[in-house]
Amino acid sequence: MTNKVLMTLLHDKKYKSIHEVLSVYNPVDLADLLETLDAQHLAVVFRMIEKEKAAEVFAYMDNDQRQLLLDTFSMEETAELLDAMSADDAVDFLEDMPANVVTHLLEKIDWTTRSAINRLLQYPEDSAGSMMTVEFIELHREMNVQQALDKIRRVGIDSETVYTCYVVERHKLEGIVTAKDLMIHDGDTKISDLMTDTFISVHTTDDQEFVANQFRRYGLIAIPVLDSEGCIVGIVTFDDAIDVLTEETTEDMHKMAALTSNNEESYLKTSVLQHAKSRIVWLMILMFSATITGTIIAGYEDAFAAIPLLVAFIPMLMDTGGNCGSQSSTLIIRGLAVGELQFSDTLKIIWKEFRVATVVSVALAIANGIRIYIMYGNMQMAMVIAISLILTVIVAKMVGCLLPIAAKRCHLDPAIMASPLITTIVDTCSIIIYFRIATLIFAL
Amino acid sequence: MTNKVLMTLLHDKKYKSIHEVLSVYNPVDLADLLETLDAQHLAVVFRMIEKEKAAEVFAYMDNDQRQLLLDTFSMEETAELLDAMSADDAVDFLEDMPANVVTHLLEKIDWTTRSAINRLLQYPEDSAGSMMTVEFIELHREMNVQQALDKIRRVGIDSETVYTCYVVERHKLEGIVTAKDLMIHDGDTKISDLMTDTFISVHTTDDQEFVANQFRRYGLIAIPVLDSEGCIVGIVTFDDAIDVLTEETTEDMHKMAALTSNNEESYLKTSVLQHAKSRIVWLMILMFSATITGTIIAGYEDAFAAIPLLVAFIPMLMDTGGNCGSQSSTLIIRGLAVGELQFSDTLKIIWKEFRVATVVSVALAIANGIRIYIMYGNMQMAMVIAISLILTVIVAKMVGCLLPIAAKRCHLDPAIMASPLITTIVDTCSIIIYFRIATLIFAL
Repeated sequence: MTNKVLMTLLHDKKYKSIHEVLSVYNPVDLADLLETLDAQHLAVVFRMIEKEKAAEVFAYMDNDQRQLLLDTFSMEETAELLDAMSADDAVDFLEDMPANVVTHLLEKIDWTTRSAINRLLQYPEDSAGSMMTVEFIELHREMNVQQALDKIRRVGIDSETVYTCYVVERHKLEGIVTAKDLMIHDGDTKISDLMTDTFISVHTTDDQEFVANQFRRYGLIAIPVLDSEGCIVGIVTFDDAIDVLTEETTEDMHKMAALTSNNEESYLKTSVLQHAKSRIVWLMILMFSATITGTIIAGYEDAFAAIPLLVAFIPMLMDTGGNCGSQSSTLIIRGLAVGELQFSDTLKIIWKEFRVATVVSVALAIANGIRIYIMYGNMQMAMVIAISLILTVIVAKMVGCLLPIAAKRCHLDPAIMASPLITTIVDTCSIIIYFRIATLIFAL
Repeated sequence: MTNKVLMTLLHDKKYKSIHEVLSVYNPVDLADLLETLDAQHLAVVFRMIEKEKAAEVFAYMDNDQRQLLLDTFSMEETAELLDAMSADDAVDFLEDMPANVVTHLLEKIDWTTRSAINRLLQYPEDSAGSMMTVEFIELHREMNVQQALDKIRRVGIDSETVYTCYVVERHKLEGIVTAKDLMIHDGDTKISDLMTDTFISVHTTDDQEFVANQFRRYGLIAIPVLDSEGCIVGIVTFDDAIDVLTEETTEDMHKMAALTSNNEESYLKTSVLQHAKSRIVWLMILMFSATITGTIIAGYEDAFAAIPLLVAFIPMLMDTGGNCGSQSSTLIIRGLAVGELQFSDTLKIIWKEFRVATVVSVALAIANGIRIYIMYGNMQMAMVIAISLILTVIVAKMVGCLLPIAAKRCHLDPAIMASPLITTIVDTCSIIIYFRIATLIFAL
């Protein structure tokens, strides 16, 4: 259904048809459709979606649309909506609301939901604790398959949360049972015979990136979250892990391009001033850092006054250095992010980068040396460029691989040690190398 | 179990203990452990893992280790291993083997497995068809829950593949039933009453990135793959989708850093020459492109001969332009990759970038203008830099946002239109702008 069709149906008051179409719509697509509506129509259409589904759709809507909708809602209606949402979605939503509204809302909702939400709100924002849902199937050793299925039927929560069940004894997680095992075994099979006691788990305080990486590594559907005493307090499901992987990757890419924004709004929804703010910090820092390179160049005024051609090669040297550095830093940053590289690999990385730099730099130096010799017939200039290129590339690759590792070691995000910063540092080095070699070879 | 413990147990011939420890080990971790072994021990330990699990472990091992192992295997043993692997894992493995070995192997294995593998091998490498597994639970409308559970018990495949069952009539997919529905309903409930006929599906020829994005968007456990006639031929499960998302993101990041490699080996396993090869192509192209900027600078020899200070600001201008361009291009490339931005947003993007560029450039121009006026007391120079900065930033942001969109439009990967290429293009523009303005203001 397109926006146009929906508007026509609304105009003709064909509410029954709208209701029917909405009921077969996927919640994700429905949220997208609602985004195209104005406040008034939004409120009308949203109320036509059945309650359970509406809560899910609400979880997929963006903040602006939610706000529009909430403005038309009474406190009771909002509380009702919160009640129908899964606790982790409700928390994501409440984290973006003003504190006084949150307090009011929490007062209105059902006690169990409230305490679940309150508990989740206490965990640090990017931790496993804030990512998890408290809804999971808790079984006991002495139960049988039939009792387990009865419990699933009774508790009846989201389907992705029932596919791994947790065998618990005094809150301690003792093992897991998959839904597949429950489906293929007889009703009187004991849970203790089905459960496996080797399982992957995370702690409430683990970083969400670590949690997501466990999903990536082991291909899990859900992972149990344990507190400091080893008691199970919730689970994280794979769909939230995929969201976190996407979010963390986007964040890394933005950091690598000298963007500071932490806001989760989409590109088009972010205001011009927000965009400008997230870009200007690093641009200012890098701009002023680049003046250092300028000052160094100014110091060699006599050199390029004598041989003006020297200036013509500055962009080529700077760009090549920057590109070499960003190749290395990108490989290392990504390797560290997906857990393929560790701090303990540092020496291997340096040795590898050094050899790669040697091969690459010699090839570039020969190609460019020959070009310059042919174009300018100037053997000395060809030598200056060739040697400068070799040294610049080696320095660039070393800086490019070492800075992300160093950042990781200092518990900083390696992603800030990417192209823009590396380029600025390598620029300075390459200019110093270049003019030193030029003054030496041309005996200036 | 660390490598050291394992070696000690092996040395002491404690095979029973090893076998027991191996049996509780997670296949992913086991593959990691095996990586630390030499060929001889690898073969011994691998044969101690039970057959089903061994096939899974094999799927997680990297190519080198697999080759080591296969060298010690007879053709029969290899065929047996292939038989035990899931069809999609077997295909991934066979795609890396020489064609004659594949033919030999396929002759030895079970007919059903062979035909499944053969079918999968025919799909283009990065398509939904090559990603999918042919193992899924096929149900019919007239079956009841008990019959469905019996079928699952009988077919007994990987657990992640049973959580969505497919209702099929003459190969056509008519609807889906979740495992949760099967678990919570009575044995005599008809499948036709449980199934939902609205579902997300993909086609065999869809690109793997598109498939993965459907998982991201809808949070699915599995997605059915249909052929051109709407018949279901396989399913893709979420764990493979996570792998593809990771792989595609890494590929994007590498492209964005001017790396051409398509090899899937890890950083440390890639040889120095492989590394050099994947880096040198773009470095050469960009290095020679950068000489254009050099040639332009050389053309303004008289200008910087008259005012040598002009040269000192080149790095700052070039770097700022490059950084501004790569900020914009990264935002657009990522937005396009996650499906947040579309080609139809082009005008909105240009307008937004133009306004952001204006705000950012004016701020940078004022900051730097004041600095230059204070440091050099040279109002004209402050003006030249300020105006050049404003124009450079605007051009950089325009180039940075337009090139990825243009690439997308031409069915190229937007990721190649990133920092390195943008920087080189923006460099040329900024140098032209700079010297034009300088000659104008200083009346050179």
